[in-house]
Amino acid sequence: MDKDEKPNRNVRRRRRTRELILHAADSVFRAKGVDNATVNDITDAADVAYGTFYNHFRSMDEIVEARAELSIQRVSEFTDPLLKHAGRVELLPCIGARIIMRVLIADPAMRWMVERPYVFVDEISKVAAPMMRGAEAQAVADGRLKPVGGHECWLRMYPWLLLAEIQEALKSGDIFFHEEQFAYVSLRFLGIDDALAVSLVGESRDLVGDAALNLGPGASAS
Amino acid sequence: MDKDEKPNRNVRRRRRTRELILHAADSVFRAKGVDNATVNDITDAADVAYGTFYNHFRSMDEIVEARAELSIQRVSEFTDPLLKHAGRVELLPCIGARIIMRVLIADPAMRWMVERPYVFVDEISKVAAPMMRGAEAQAVADGRLKPVGGHECWLRMYPWLLLAEIQEALKSGDIFFHEEQFAYVSLRFLGIDDALAVSLVGESRDLVGDAALNLGPGASAS
Repeated sequence: MDKDEKPNRNVRRRRRTRELILHAADSVFRAKGVDNATVNDITDAADVAYGTFYNHFRSMDEIVEARAELSIQRVSEFTDPLLKHAGRVELLPCIGARIIMRVLIADPAMRWMVERPYVFVDEISKVAAPMMRGAEAQAVADGRLKPVGGHECWLRMYPWLLLAEIQEALKSGDIFFHEEQFAYVSLRFLGIDDALAVSLVGESRDLVGDAALNLGPGASAS
Repeated sequence: MDKDEKPNRNVRRRRRTRELILHAADSVFRAKGVDNATVNDITDAADVAYGTFYNHFRSMDEIVEARAELSIQRVSEFTDPLLKHAGRVELLPCIGARIIMRVLIADPAMRWMVERPYVFVDEISKVAAPMMRGAEAQAVADGRLKPVGGHECWLRMYPWLLLAEIQEALKSGDIFFHEEQFAYVSLRFLGIDDALAVSLVGESRDLVGDAALNLGPGASAS
């Protein structure tokens, strides 16, 4: 190992420690809830020194936001291959609605954010908007998607619609109903006609399947 | 005056004092902002004793919410006669969008609530939902309005859509643009087709006119 590798190794070590802390935070949040978790709980679970936390995160809020961003990124990791398999952009809102509801509701960091609407909306916008802007641009240009008020209006409204629906899903416990509701609302917003919407929602039901239900709170919070 | 009138007179006096305090609170909020206003400011402006405030309101939050409710009720006082004049239920979302944006943005209590999304949504739901449920029920039943996900979904989503749009209007200062945007979003949600939407929004522009622009922040906050 020559000297030139050393900075890289330090970078890698730093990244590994950060991932260790983030991973530990998730376990602690699931076990105790975000509001009851302490920095000490997290560094204990990660088996690192207390001060190490602050080399990576300025505050508890910052690590909660980092966890939430991981969840939102996970949504696109789940959604992309399904969408490529389906090959039809109109399915994105349906598949996306199912995955995003299941992933976010399973994550205590996201549930914490539901109580802080502006933080929630900012986080969703930061991660989801660039992805959606890219994935939908062509379809908006050629008129397959006709978002009311234009594409930017849709990207801006999306996190608020999602927040309203997640909040209802958390209240009622019926995630499946609200992921379909969210899909229908999204399709209407995008100007997809009702008959096509019914078949798209049906198709997305088969594509996403029950497997992803393992992302639900019962499974991963246990 | 016989003894039987006395309780009524007390009730009337109590109501007058409450109105006096509410009126004074509005002036104070406009002059100093909600966050800087004190109970003392309000009782001074109303020329009542400090303790009188607490005969009517338990806290500052409670009087802010009461002021916000008055604003939301004002919306329906403005909207109802215009709608009767127009005689066409599809115009309700357009007229409503214009009036509600102008009234709410002009009211410091409502702007304060925009920072507290769940309070905002609750207040809008409490006052606006019963009114809308009544005004739109027949049109939903006979299919003139086809809200995606059903009428309750629309009533539930409405405050969130409004919040998102008001927030943008406050950011950009362009109330007119965002009241039309909100009207288009509402009409799409209600299943009105795009060509009709354009003519409805135009018609509502003439019906509401510039007069109501006096409700804007520049006019009433000065």
